[in-house]
Amino acid sequence: MASRSIAANCRKVVCIGRNYADHIKELHNARPKKPFFFLKPPSSILERGQGPVLRPRGVTLHYEVELALIMGRRVQDLRVDDEKGALDAIAGYAVGIDMTARDVQDEAKRKSLPWSMAKGFDTFLPLSRYIPKAAVPDPQDVELWLTVNGAQRQRDSTGLMLFGIPRVLSEISRVMRLEEGDVVLTGTPKGVGKVEVGDVMRAGVVVGGREVEEAGIEVG
Amino acid sequence: MASRSIAANCRKVVCIGRNYADHIKELHNARPKKPFFFLKPPSSILERGQGPVLRPRGVTLHYEVELALIMGRRVQDLRVDDEKGALDAIAGYAVGIDMTARDVQDEAKRKSLPWSMAKGFDTFLPLSRYIPKAAVPDPQDVELWLTVNGAQRQRDSTGLMLFGIPRVLSEISRVMRLEEGDVVLTGTPKGVGKVEVGDVMRAGVVVGGREVEEAGIEVG
Ligand SMILES: [Mg+2]
Ligand SMILES: [Mg+2]
Ligand SMILES: [Mg+2]
Repeated sequence: MASRSIAANCRKVVCIGRNYADHIKELHNARPKKPFFFLKPPSSILERGQGPVLRPRGVTLHYEVELALIMGRRVQDLRVDDEKGALDAIAGYAVGIDMTARDVQDEAKRKSLPWSMAKGFDTFLPLSRYIPKAAVPDPQDVELWLTVNGAQRQRDSTGLMLFGIPRVLSEISRVMRLEEGDVVLTGTPKGVGKVEVGDVMRAGVVVGGREVEEAGIEVG
Repeated sequence: MASRSIAANCRKVVCIGRNYADHIKELHNARPKKPFFFLKPPSSILERGQGPVLRPRGVTLHYEVELALIMGRRVQDLRVDDEKGALDAIAGYAVGIDMTARDVQDEAKRKSLPWSMAKGFDTFLPLSRYIPKAAVPDPQDVELWLTVNGAQRQRDSTGLMLFGIPRVLSEISRVMRLEEGDVVLTGTPKGVGKVEVGDVMRAGVVVGGREVEEAGIEVG
């Protein structure tokens, strides 16, 4: 799978919301009692070299850096205590930026409408290359970072997730089965904010004190 | 495409909400000024012979019969007045039942959370066979129907859509491009309601006074 396109193999992208306490605070949201999730369409994936993130006219565009799981097998009704089952089902990782039309999302929330438009525009999911599983010995011990025009905006450990990966995969798989090639975004740490036309986002992960080469994103 | 599985070719299912006036009234919802939409995952598709719709424990399950469009080509930034472009991009049709965990959706709406869980459970999109395009000369002149245990619950013409198919495809395609094999659900007419374990749903379409054979759904 490592050499193939993540986008080409992906039939759904499932995204966890509000999975880091300090990010919940910064957006003045309520802390969820259990994980909730939404979908981005596979058509929103932007792979390296495919150009910049599009700015839909008049939209307030926010970045959210996240650890992405690339699923390696079908997962259905996973037991919440089946940590091994969860981790074995992961084929590899990527870094993703969950681009969000924040004003569109705020309006949807006010009107109790779905988030799909706010989250689903073409190019709204820049992804790094495929990160081999062996490069990430413990997915809850990964430093995620994002800069805008060279200034650091997000940098936190995946150890801060409110709901760990086994719990997240269990909750999703009891609603919708995960299939090989599906992508799961695990939530964003604090520091989300706006990008304007011309801004350059860079993102990556540090594991065991070292930058993971495959994880690098640079996107306009 | 007619002989291939709709599910196997589908990478996203885009669903229009509130597209029939009398259905908006029956759920006491606000009438939208423009079409809005949400996603169901391809994993929710239930094709003929794949068994019954699953009833997640404790969930209030509603049916919504809809005309499904099966896209035949990529559609991006379609102009709203490009009626020919819209209709040419459709490869064929199907009948779909947009199964909805209504209580889960109501809770999501109260909390301003996404609809993906309420709409996205496995088996929540029973689909008919592929209906060849030639069987539907005018997609805005189709009688959609659904019965539960033999009693008619929904029966209305697609001519009652608030936003016609070209408008719907234009709005979607200006957010997310549609691709060959994608499925678009065009909204449900009045008459939605609950099904219990053991109930049998049948659905279909009448075109020019005749039942379209391929459109028949019978699902437990
Ligand atoms: Mg996010
Ligand atoms: Mg999807
Ligand atoms: Mg519907």
